[in-house]
Amino acid sequence: MSTALKASIITIGDELLIGQTVDTNSAWMGQELNKAGIWVQRRVAVGDNWEDIWQALDEEKKKSQLIFITGGLGPTADDITKPLLCAYFGGKLVIDQGALDNVTMIFEKILKRPMIERNLKQAEVPDVCTVIPNRRGTAPGMWFEKDDCIFVSMPGVPHEMKGMMTDSVIPALSNRFRLVPVQHRTLLTAGIGESFLAERIQDFESSLPEDIKLAYLPNYGMVKLRLTCTTADPARGKELDRQFNQLKGQVADVMVVDEDIALAEALGRRLSTRKQTICTAESCTGGYIAHLITAVPGSSAYYPGSVVAYANAVKNNLLHVSQTTLESEGAVSEATVTEMVKGALAQFDTDYALAVSGIMGPDGGSAEKPVGLVWIAVGNKAKILTQQYRFRFDRQRNIELTANNALNLMLKFIVENT
Amino acid sequence: MSTALKASIITIGDELLIGQTVDTNSAWMGQELNKAGIWVQRRVAVGDNWEDIWQALDEEKKKSQLIFITGGLGPTADDITKPLLCAYFGGKLVIDQGALDNVTMIFEKILKRPMIERNLKQAEVPDVCTVIPNRRGTAPGMWFEKDDCIFVSMPGVPHEMKGMMTDSVIPALSNRFRLVPVQHRTLLTAGIGESFLAERIQDFESSLPEDIKLAYLPNYGMVKLRLTCTTADPARGKELDRQFNQLKGQVADVMVVDEDIALAEALGRRLSTRKQTICTAESCTGGYIAHLITAVPGSSAYYPGSVVAYANAVKNNLLHVSQTTLESEGAVSEATVTEMVKGALAQFDTDYALAVSGIMGPDGGSAEKPVGLVWIAVGNKAKILTQQYRFRFDRQRNIELTANNALNLMLKFIVENT
Repeated sequence: MSTALKASIITIGDELLIGQTVDTNSAWMGQELNKAGIWVQRRVAVGDNWEDIWQALDEEKKKSQLIFITGGLGPTADDITKPLLCAYFGGKLVIDQGALDNVTMIFEKILKRPMIERNLKQAEVPDVCTVIPNRRGTAPGMWFEKDDCIFVSMPGVPHEMKGMMTDSVIPALSNRFRLVPVQHRTLLTAGIGESFLAERIQDFESSLPEDIKLAYLPNYGMVKLRLTCTTADPARGKELDRQFNQLKGQVADVMVVDEDIALAEALGRRLSTRKQTICTAESCTGGYIAHLITAVPGSSAYYPGSVVAYANAVKNNLLHVSQTTLESEGAVSEATVTEMVKGALAQFDTDYALAVSGIMGPDGGSAEKPVGLVWIAVGNKAKILTQQYRFRFDRQRNIELTANNALNLMLKFIVENT
Repeated sequence: MSTALKASIITIGDELLIGQTVDTNSAWMGQELNKAGIWVQRRVAVGDNWEDIWQALDEEKKKSQLIFITGGLGPTADDITKPLLCAYFGGKLVIDQGALDNVTMIFEKILKRPMIERNLKQAEVPDVCTVIPNRRGTAPGMWFEKDDCIFVSMPGVPHEMKGMMTDSVIPALSNRFRLVPVQHRTLLTAGIGESFLAERIQDFESSLPEDIKLAYLPNYGMVKLRLTCTTADPARGKELDRQFNQLKGQVADVMVVDEDIALAEALGRRLSTRKQTICTAESCTGGYIAHLITAVPGSSAYYPGSVVAYANAVKNNLLHVSQTTLESEGAVSEATVTEMVKGALAQFDTDYALAVSGIMGPDGGSAEKPVGLVWIAVGNKAKILTQQYRFRFDRQRNIELTANNALNLMLKFIVENT
């Protein structure tokens, strides 16, 4: 059985360890490397500390053929990665003409400011590396080889790292090794717990071939199921498809989408195919649903906008929820979200609308209407569907759960009502 | 010099390595542990693989006194952490009565469904651990001790892990060790590059005492500056304050906020103090600014809502941007965002309004108005301030940059105009 090339990711920076920044770089790199046929087997984060970084390099090179390093390449004194790599690989720092031209160009053409000594230092690299050009910033990337291991050092700024990976690093690795992409098939289910899902498909799971692995990824009331083929052989794709179709058959009633895409993207595809439109009226999610929808490129084709009606006056003025309803039923009620859908359909003139109202916490709850109570309505001019939820989590999670459930309910409504 | 207790975090799950989920758990744990006086010195992510997990335990226990493990405790076949820990610490699996009562309660009272065999297994724990109760889910946490090292295993579901850390783990560690919280002071700057900032404060930085460290955290056009005291001594707080005040003096003109809080929270505090209100009118950010504002608990006191005006018709109907302006100047123009602010102030009757319009990409750009062009307007009934930006990044980053710059401009306007 041939296996994928193995990699470790080392991220450098105290801010990662004290949680001041969330490490989104590693997730992105994992995805891209995986697609290219490289298996990330370990990710290690260490602080801005000479011994810790050195030790991580020593240890990871015993485990992986490829080491990707991000962070610590900025122009300030807390960035020690470059001198450390220079020492580690036994080189000395020299000015790289290409990197210098790039820094100069950025200051002259884009920033339109004079350069300072510190910026010039950005163009210095160890003379034992191959420079990786940075088209989006001043710090060049560096490619080292030692003991049959390749080390790639990149800045921690996400879009700079992404540019280097896409433009230079992955193409260079694909050239050098005969890479076979790791094959996955992923589907998303909603409304069924992980253990019940597992119970239902246990015979399927135990009958899977040795090289096809099933994983459960529960998140926000939904469970993703992922089949992975561990054999690096494109021909196994057919078997993976066969197994995936069987899996789809067994979870058809709870399946939301049979690709690894976000709910809002699945919604967008359905709307685009049908040449239909949708709008939203959000109280408790405060614009988060609109954000999820508009995060999808091209969403302006099917989404004209939203009213974020946090205050009752806005529900009344912009969505025409009647004062009577707001007073007798309250803002968090079936009647209010129903009128919000009707008001939104009238304001935006779309085929569908969704509306949410609820209490996200930590404050604002009462005995009758506790924190976590949410009403969702979805519909078109002919029909409106409502649903009540009771979430038991913190504000952020309640917002995310409400948004996901609203998008899922909308998706179902569209499928069942067109 | 006494130093903080050192910890490693081990996260388990293939989904982390292939980038299907972003690891937000580690950032949260890093923050909370740091506050409690525990220094996370390494974070390691490994896949659902027996040898890799075992090796990570062996290695991290040589480096840290505390090992926090998350993930791999679910009821499905890909979760191998529990049997592995049982073998690693030489125990055998037994039913824990407390955990069993908890699982039973969750099924009877909350899920209102019959339990299945697989759920019962959730109540099994190695007989060599202390059980950590899980009030938010079925999988119990486990506390092991071996070779002068404490191992804490928790589920990967964020709110379950957070509950255990807050309710049980951190209190238990605080009881056992004389913990002194790691002290930080953080401020946020905008409108100045990392290298220029470094140039400006280099004398300050080089005059810092040995145990106070300065870090630069650049992100989305802003730079955070963080002072950390590495001595575990509450008395050093005074010196830290003194240095922080000096730093604040040197960056006063570019400082946005002198705490480690989000821009939207800083904005909320200013508005609450002044008993004033704000509304938003968003085109290109599609609700993201509304989301950032409403993510702050209590924001309903100063934020009635937003119009997300993705389509021109919505800019005209709901925000009263004139058809003439939209046709002659275009949706992405100074005139349009100015009228959006006026329209929003009228619709929502707030003290302030902010409006954004731009081209986020990947499509929709032209030679005259390229992808990344953004107009922002902020103002009140008396005065409107506009600003043009040209971002050069991908859709997601353009949205975040636009949102951050708009909030920052609004904050400045409020400070300067009241």
